[in-house]
Amino acid sequence: MIVETQCARFDSLALEGGASLSSVEAAYETYGELNADRSNAILITHAFTGEAHAAGISHETGKPGWWDNMIGPGKAFDTDRYFVICSNALGGCQGTTGPGSINPATGAPYAMSFPVITIRDMVHLQKMLIDQLGIERLLCVAGGSMGGMQALEWAVSYPEVVRCVIPIATTWRHSAQQIAFNEVGRQAIMADPDWCDGDYYDKKPPARGLSVARMVGHITYMSDESMREKFGRKLRQKEKFGFDFGVDFEVESYLRYRGNQFVSRFDANSYLYITKAEDYFDLTNGTGRLSDAFGRADTRFLVISFTSDWLYPSYQSQEIVRLLRRMNGDVAYCDLPSNYGHDAFLVDVAEQTEIVRGFLDSTARTAKAA
Amino acid sequence: MIVETQCARFDSLALEGGASLSSVEAAYETYGELNADRSNAILITHAFTGEAHAAGISHETGKPGWWDNMIGPGKAFDTDRYFVICSNALGGCQGTTGPGSINPATGAPYAMSFPVITIRDMVHLQKMLIDQLGIERLLCVAGGSMGGMQALEWAVSYPEVVRCVIPIATTWRHSAQQIAFNEVGRQAIMADPDWCDGDYYDKKPPARGLSVARMVGHITYMSDESMREKFGRKLRQKEKFGFDFGVDFEVESYLRYRGNQFVSRFDANSYLYITKAEDYFDLTNGTGRLSDAFGRADTRFLVISFTSDWLYPSYQSQEIVRLLRRMNGDVAYCDLPSNYGHDAFLVDVAEQTEIVRGFLDSTARTAKAA
Repeated sequence: MIVETQCARFDSLALEGGASLSSVEAAYETYGELNADRSNAILITHAFTGEAHAAGISHETGKPGWWDNMIGPGKAFDTDRYFVICSNALGGCQGTTGPGSINPATGAPYAMSFPVITIRDMVHLQKMLIDQLGIERLLCVAGGSMGGMQALEWAVSYPEVVRCVIPIATTWRHSAQQIAFNEVGRQAIMADPDWCDGDYYDKKPPARGLSVARMVGHITYMSDESMREKFGRKLRQKEKFGFDFGVDFEVESYLRYRGNQFVSRFDANSYLYITKAEDYFDLTNGTGRLSDAFGRADTRFLVISFTSDWLYPSYQSQEIVRLLRRMNGDVAYCDLPSNYGHDAFLVDVAEQTEIVRGFLDSTARTAKAA
Repeated sequence: MIVETQCARFDSLALEGGASLSSVEAAYETYGELNADRSNAILITHAFTGEAHAAGISHETGKPGWWDNMIGPGKAFDTDRYFVICSNALGGCQGTTGPGSINPATGAPYAMSFPVITIRDMVHLQKMLIDQLGIERLLCVAGGSMGGMQALEWAVSYPEVVRCVIPIATTWRHSAQQIAFNEVGRQAIMADPDWCDGDYYDKKPPARGLSVARMVGHITYMSDESMREKFGRKLRQKEKFGFDFGVDFEVESYLRYRGNQFVSRFDANSYLYITKAEDYFDLTNGTGRLSDAFGRADTRFLVISFTSDWLYPSYQSQEIVRLLRRMNGDVAYCDLPSNYGHDAFLVDVAEQTEIVRGFLDSTARTAKAA
């Protein structure tokens, strides 16, 4: 399945913070065919550093999509049955308007003049894309981590537009610890003199700061157990310790590699804006009353968490589930056993596949019967 | 109790890595009185960024010691009964020889020409200090975190010199995740151009890199729950989000404050050397056979962990305890309930006090009877 990223254009987008953007672009891909009554569309929302290329092999790069193990013929999001859409999030750096985009008012990159955005703004842009594609109602919005926040926000902002949502490994509001890890990443980037207050687009990017930020991220995506299994105390290339500050351990080598690799594909300012959107995320707008947020929702929910995920721990999913149950909502929940930590939704997909497939099938049948 | 830091001097110290240091100094403090038969001495070993000033009020700074709630008259380490010693660890920056010390061969600071040191080297220097103080046998070596590693190393390197050890919130070998967090801190420091390959002693220190490293540390010292209780999503000074990159949340403000504050009291190169010593720490020297390490030990053990400590999780203490039990060793173990995470051994000391007091008392009585 060779796929190409497409681009939708919009004149303007009003933002939750009060600002507005003009000439907004959204990069997206689609997989499968939209059926005649336009009832089989599924929107996939990506995590922090994801992109529109979720499945198939990219025409441009030859690389598989980030959720190719979940999206395709016969897979959880079965492209023989469903029309699957994935768009790069607002604020990103892979085709959708973000801080690295050209500000039409100045002809130069926005950099830090880009307005602070929210998860709701991301969802708003996705809704405009869905409208442009002529889809009145989505069968499902599904995603993990920040993608799960967007799925939840869809159920709150556009409950009449989405039959079901599948928030995975996520939370209904960012916690102090989650904010803290994001803040460390931001400070690492801003501490890099190459960041230049965000104006580095015609110079070298703040590679070392961004790399440190990514290293912290990678630790939080894995579990203590998966790191022990994958690396333990294995040494890199030596019989003994080097007794110097070169790489001694495999885990050091892995983190440095992943940090450096990330710099070539991700924009440091997007890192700042997207982490800020996550930190602002609170479905209840600070009231703490989840019931108000979901008050209007008759959407079906499938909530999934993973036992070893300590970045978005299961209890945060369970708070959503308990609330929806108290409201007599239609909610299924699975706390899947996995050692992979937060990464589980990307890599440990066997059981997740069965659960998602069954849930989508029953939602599609219910929709047809209605 | 006004206390003064003292300094012991030694001609040389041979290191595990093969190098040796000349003109080594060790800063230390003592509390209480050594009894006539010199049988009541307890060595306290400090955590990563600790110092010799463990108890009482410093004559120099007017500040209480870092474990003043555990050491003093009537406290867990009762200075009415015991003679308590605490020395700044080798490689540190608060009086003991470290990378910021003057290399007598050159007259300039060692900086990165300082040899890589190990936990065993730290313990070796402590043994030389104990010898100089005329103490043949310690009643106890006790400490938390890296202090716990030193306590365990004492039991392995000098079993005949220590009647009991109290390793708290620690591990018998640094895990991949523990190494990973340390490596992020090191990379943050080394990414700071002010680090200058360690040669910053006559210039400004790598303050931003060191601050980022400390921020990561602070997250790992607290628990998800204690951060939620202390900060939650509380905003700093605003009714609403700032929609900018200033401080929005209390937790951001706290981390920035703690990061900046740390720079004034800690040397970045010491951060590098001491984290490296932690990462090299493996009581079994890579064999994984704990029984070999403890083969000669007839020392009594009191092992303490805390339920919410995810940096040095309880299972790591339990591995030590299980091994010692299998060897028919004299080992007591408590997994204390606490929400404070790794910081618990410093702040949540009520139950810890009772347990330590009883254990020391029974050890002292056993010693007298023998």
